[in-house]
Amino acid sequence: MRCVEFAVELSRTGLHLRQAFFCWAIFSACELGVFDLLLQSQKPMSAVEVAQKLGTSEDGIERLLDVLVAIEIVDVEVVQGTAFYSSTDVANLYLAKTSPKSLHDLIIYNSQTIYPLWNNLVDAVREGKNQNEKTFGLPSEEIFSAIYRSEEEMLKFMGLMNSTWVIDGHDIVTAFDLTNFKTVIDLGGCSGALARELAKEYPSSTVTVLDLPAVVQTAQQHFAQQDDTICFQEGDFFEGEIPPADLYILARIIHDWKEEKNLKLLKKIHTACHPGGGVLIAEALLFENSRGPTMVQMFSLNMLVQTEGKEHPPSHYTHLLTEAGFRDVQVCRTGKSYDAILALK
Amino acid sequence: MRCVEFAVELSRTGLHLRQAFFCWAIFSACELGVFDLLLQSQKPMSAVEVAQKLGTSEDGIERLLDVLVAIEIVDVEVVQGTAFYSSTDVANLYLAKTSPKSLHDLIIYNSQTIYPLWNNLVDAVREGKNQNEKTFGLPSEEIFSAIYRSEEEMLKFMGLMNSTWVIDGHDIVTAFDLTNFKTVIDLGGCSGALARELAKEYPSSTVTVLDLPAVVQTAQQHFAQQDDTICFQEGDFFEGEIPPADLYILARIIHDWKEEKNLKLLKKIHTACHPGGGVLIAEALLFENSRGPTMVQMFSLNMLVQTEGKEHPPSHYTHLLTEAGFRDVQVCRTGKSYDAILALK
Repeated sequence: MRCVEFAVELSRTGLHLRQAFFCWAIFSACELGVFDLLLQSQKPMSAVEVAQKLGTSEDGIERLLDVLVAIEIVDVEVVQGTAFYSSTDVANLYLAKTSPKSLHDLIIYNSQTIYPLWNNLVDAVREGKNQNEKTFGLPSEEIFSAIYRSEEEMLKFMGLMNSTWVIDGHDIVTAFDLTNFKTVIDLGGCSGALARELAKEYPSSTVTVLDLPAVVQTAQQHFAQQDDTICFQEGDFFEGEIPPADLYILARIIHDWKEEKNLKLLKKIHTACHPGGGVLIAEALLFENSRGPTMVQMFSLNMLVQTEGKEHPPSHYTHLLTEAGFRDVQVCRTGKSYDAILALK
Repeated sequence: MRCVEFAVELSRTGLHLRQAFFCWAIFSACELGVFDLLLQSQKPMSAVEVAQKLGTSEDGIERLLDVLVAIEIVDVEVVQGTAFYSSTDVANLYLAKTSPKSLHDLIIYNSQTIYPLWNNLVDAVREGKNQNEKTFGLPSEEIFSAIYRSEEEMLKFMGLMNSTWVIDGHDIVTAFDLTNFKTVIDLGGCSGALARELAKEYPSSTVTVLDLPAVVQTAQQHFAQQDDTICFQEGDFFEGEIPPADLYILARIIHDWKEEKNLKLLKKIHTACHPGGGVLIAEALLFENSRGPTMVQMFSLNMLVQTEGKEHPPSHYTHLLTEAGFRDVQVCRTGKSYDAILALK
């Protein structure tokens, strides 16, 4: 059968076409709370019990659970003809909401925002622009109106950004010695996770997150910490003022927007920046010849369906920064998901 | 990073979460005609040339081509800074429309019908019913109104069914010796591919495809063969008459519908069937304990989002057939995608 032949051919390149369906099964189970329920339950549960607790159909949840068993995300034992399902270590660790290693927010963001957008990939390639309008009925130029389309969505996205920088933030703030920058502003710093990493590493610096009023309010309500080491300031760094500082952070900002808009922003930052100050950019970098890394190429395709921007190789950032008046551009590939670029005024 | 850890854990079970994105990239390229263009082109093409020929954005097609290069579906060589893309053997064989082994119809059906439905898997599990209404605005009980929602969609689906039985049909018609059945009717026989396999194997039998008028007309227009060995008859075997015959084929019909509807249909077939005649069912069979095969479990979840039915183990078919009055139920697992069940009147 041709599908099988093709699958075999593809698997040599590490590809498995039908796995999209397994992703959906895991995502849906996450969204329905299957893994949380199985973790909390003291004993294995039948499909009927799971359906009752989660308010789903019995038939639907049974088919879903059976697929999860097949891919070894859920365990099963059959007692007198009835299947009893229980969670696995991998589900408890990565899929249950309460686990410190939970990917729950990421999965929900994928299933409710990214996947629906990728369903319109053909149109994105045809038109060369994001699919927020077709997917969510939102203006394509306001890319954050899709991501922040409800308080719940905003919170999910912020949770995701938060966990990204809780994990990868340390590599970004230690990519260069930032000791001499005493006032730091993280532009679009979201929940403040990267700013906190910086404040922890450089305790003598004052670190401020500048973000949209709604984001700052949500950050303070949901992500504030006792004796927080950072400050928040409400503002719009594209439309409004940029306060003076020694160092500006732009973490995953540039890749969202068109070149002209980024250049205008960097020039504005250059004007506001104290002499001897600088800008620190955190992005996933393409290779200079654009032939990889594969994941960054895929991110760039994702930027097409979701934003006005794209991923770039280091030379593009050097060009932009130099054009905006910065000098001494240094690039540090961290070997993790995000790389760092530092430039001085 | 947690995603990577989770990915590593999952890959031990053969799962690769991010591959859904690679599927979309391949599907979209198929839909845009990338593989056909690269196959027809006598020389490697730049992204600008591909964009011009296909009427897409240059930026979008370049990002898509780069992802296809990364997953080794497209080749690239860079000449004086410009990337020139060419097709690979695997793309020419399986993804170009003109190849006899083309998966084009299957891929388009996946990307335009199956994937959009699976995007609503959570609701399907919650409600225990198909998502035709939410996905296509079509009544959930008329499952073929989604599949046949336009002439183009009907043709694609029929092309898909056709290639399924061109490939797997021989295994179904040779699972049992059907020599003694002189008049055969394939109920819902679509393009006639399975009926042709049967007529080829049993040249002394008369084989008729009975399907909805629109399906029969499309079959005759697009799938008819010179000196065709089979006949077509327009009809609705649920609502209308079932003509007398020695053998009735139900290939991938039962799994679309609810038990009551299937039982009523089988009783109606039993009444019409000549004494000594029978019914041949072709379906993908679950194991008796429902713990696999994985692909059939996934088909069953697909039946949830798309139809009123599900996949079953052999015992269910035996039960249905016996209840409808048939006897001597025999099950043959072919070892291919679809299995065969024969029962006699």
